[in-house]
Amino acid sequence: MTCLFLTVNNTVRSTSTLCKVYRSAHGTAGLHSFVCANSKRAFLLGGKCSFIRTGTRPMSNTSQVWISFRRSCKVFLAAGFTALIGDLLAGASHFQRAEMASKISEIEEGEGDIREICKTFMSPPVTDIKVLEERKDAMSTRMEMMIMETQADFCKALEEVDGGTFKVDRWSRKEGGGGISCVMQDGKYFEKAGVNVSVVSGYLTEEAAKQMRSRGKVLKGKDGKLPFCAMGVSSVIHPKNPHIPTVHFNYRYFEIEEADGSKQWWFGGGTDLTPVYIDLEDAAHFHNTLKSACDKHNPKYYPDFKKWCDNYFYIRHRGETRGIGGIFFDDLDSPNQEKVFNFVKSCAKAVVPCYLPIVHKHLNDSVSPEEKDWQQVRRGRYVEFNLVYDRGVKFGLATPGSRIESILMSLPLTARWEYMHEPAKGTKEAEMLEVLRNPKEWI
Amino acid sequence: MTCLFLTVNNTVRSTSTLCKVYRSAHGTAGLHSFVCANSKRAFLLGGKCSFIRTGTRPMSNTSQVWISFRRSCKVFLAAGFTALIGDLLAGASHFQRAEMASKISEIEEGEGDIREICKTFMSPPVTDIKVLEERKDAMSTRMEMMIMETQADFCKALEEVDGGTFKVDRWSRKEGGGGISCVMQDGKYFEKAGVNVSVVSGYLTEEAAKQMRSRGKVLKGKDGKLPFCAMGVSSVIHPKNPHIPTVHFNYRYFEIEEADGSKQWWFGGGTDLTPVYIDLEDAAHFHNTLKSACDKHNPKYYPDFKKWCDNYFYIRHRGETRGIGGIFFDDLDSPNQEKVFNFVKSCAKAVVPCYLPIVHKHLNDSVSPEEKDWQQVRRGRYVEFNLVYDRGVKFGLATPGSRIESILMSLPLTARWEYMHEPAKGTKEAEMLEVLRNPKEWI
Repeated sequence: MTCLFLTVNNTVRSTSTLCKVYRSAHGTAGLHSFVCANSKRAFLLGGKCSFIRTGTRPMSNTSQVWISFRRSCKVFLAAGFTALIGDLLAGASHFQRAEMASKISEIEEGEGDIREICKTFMSPPVTDIKVLEERKDAMSTRMEMMIMETQADFCKALEEVDGGTFKVDRWSRKEGGGGISCVMQDGKYFEKAGVNVSVVSGYLTEEAAKQMRSRGKVLKGKDGKLPFCAMGVSSVIHPKNPHIPTVHFNYRYFEIEEADGSKQWWFGGGTDLTPVYIDLEDAAHFHNTLKSACDKHNPKYYPDFKKWCDNYFYIRHRGETRGIGGIFFDDLDSPNQEKVFNFVKSCAKAVVPCYLPIVHKHLNDSVSPEEKDWQQVRRGRYVEFNLVYDRGVKFGLATPGSRIESILMSLPLTARWEYMHEPAKGTKEAEMLEVLRNPKEWI
Repeated sequence: MTCLFLTVNNTVRSTSTLCKVYRSAHGTAGLHSFVCANSKRAFLLGGKCSFIRTGTRPMSNTSQVWISFRRSCKVFLAAGFTALIGDLLAGASHFQRAEMASKISEIEEGEGDIREICKTFMSPPVTDIKVLEERKDAMSTRMEMMIMETQADFCKALEEVDGGTFKVDRWSRKEGGGGISCVMQDGKYFEKAGVNVSVVSGYLTEEAAKQMRSRGKVLKGKDGKLPFCAMGVSSVIHPKNPHIPTVHFNYRYFEIEEADGSKQWWFGGGTDLTPVYIDLEDAAHFHNTLKSACDKHNPKYYPDFKKWCDNYFYIRHRGETRGIGGIFFDDLDSPNQEKVFNFVKSCAKAVVPCYLPIVHKHLNDSVSPEEKDWQQVRRGRYVEFNLVYDRGVKFGLATPGSRIESILMSLPLTARWEYMHEPAKGTKEAEMLEVLRNPKEWI
């Protein structure tokens, strides 16, 4: 089976949900199940619908293709409002230079009514729906709708697998904005799964604004203050079974308004995988799916952002990467806003097809106590990276008024630190460590 | 029963070890047991001996007094050699101003032969014994002997309780110096117990030297480089039973040589307790024992260093202290080197009587699964403090060539992060949290 992308316009009234399709070894596809994962959040919608077909690689003879059966929407949006970066950076990350050529293809968006689309989300969006409707063409609105949709898609896909339900918390910042945290803890298959949206606003000092961007460009604020708008979706999933890897993704957007009224904006994000044991097929599937999402926009994106990911998710004091990488980028603002947004959207849409086939493949793998121990040791390393190096976490913890529970939801439910732990040569554990010490190409 | 200090000179040839004395409610003391905890490291020694009697408070009607039955030694030491702070700061901490009056009483030291005394340690000292003998009067030698002795005393006391044995690792830095890490993992009573000595040497830049001291004094180096000598003992003990608190202590000494040959030196350290459940009697015993050690030297030490401790071991993003404090000080260099050393020695000698009676009191307390869960959540907070705030850990992780396993041995074997964990009102867990959110006076 090879990766395939298809777009089917459809007028069927339906809910925003995911359906699982089993394809036979001969390539014929049959609808195996089509279940609304969380009926209390499902609404019948009118308007134009689309299937967004996302790439998968073969996982087995009877492999699975995940199709986002989704009412596509042309999200209408609004003039920029300002936001402080604070909590958003919970899952965000840092700032380096990405100089990329531009060859971004557009993704189809259907027409739709914002109010109706919002009903498919895990919660009403952070910004008041009226404001979103008034400013429907602004990038801030389009991005907020996109991250809300990404949150809903991913949560529903995980709920469908697990049978458990995400706890949804809305929270607000008195300085402006807020967020929606969805957490499933101690589910049947997921030990801790968090999917967080933040949309925050406020003011930054010129110095803080300079630090925000990897290119360190000096921005002039009115009386030294710069109105800010920052939003993103971030997620970390820690499954129980050590043969199912941890996944993390984060997609974010920033706007800063200068004294002369001009706006600086940029996007950042990434998706990366942290297995406990190496599975070459999983690694290739994950990276191929990301590559497919990148290649539609620019052939340089995947190789460049793969390298950036390996460099960023590096536990320096251990001499190990956190996992087997994926893609990571920041400060992306060329060739134009529309094209970068479409690229980010492709990446966000790739999250479910990147991860869910791997989850399904290992859902019922048998587990030994030794494997569980090694998982706990690797979880300890995850904690080390997140608390010591992750710029988003560090920024969040240092920012007064941050929502700590959302920032630290990325930590696993349990972790372990054994003194002088070193796997014996020739073991599966040593094989994993070798890969983390010497990052490799997966495709 | 009240705190009491006694010194008994004795010519008995014996080993450096600890014996447990049970005192009846009437105050009479009988030798209950006198067992060399680790016979393979015990040697018969000649020379003058002393009982160092250390303070305890009543823990029960038939309470226990811990007496360090120890061959006292006049440690002979040597000219300053230089050391980089790196690994030492594993358990060390940071730098604030301590302006203290001085009223430090001398502690008796017996005569002794360095080579013989070294046989009572967990390992030969870091510095070659010949060098120590040549420089027997130098503070660096006296301090190295003191921290080695503290490590041995504490390890043997814990081994006697647990029945397990510490794994002893010697390690060296190619830049100069090294350390001895003693770790007991998954013992009968101790989940993870680490007692680490470091003695490191090297060069610091002027900027780094400035950052080392809380007072930020500018030091002039030869060609900008300052020879350094840094040493310390640090320990974190995580017991299995949630009714036995975690203890941490660290005592350290620094020397920097300026271009004109003059030496800057200072001491730092502290001992603090992190219970999972509050026990007023334990808290009072712990703080009273520390106060006794401090009061012999300066009546301001305990109140000032208790406050400093509460301020330092503070998890800002949680609005909680790490535990119920103890004492903490740094950059202490007055009234003179001899008096500060004696104060630090008193504190180091207080570690066993601070902690061991609490361990014994709760050794066989029954434990519910809920209590074990709460312990794991508190362990998570311990990890947060150590990785996010502890200056020693941060410095160590950022220093190339650090011994990571020694730096991170302070982390618990296991920890847990539950999303939005908040104990119900009126529970023992809520009571503990209340104390951490509002530090109090214990005596």
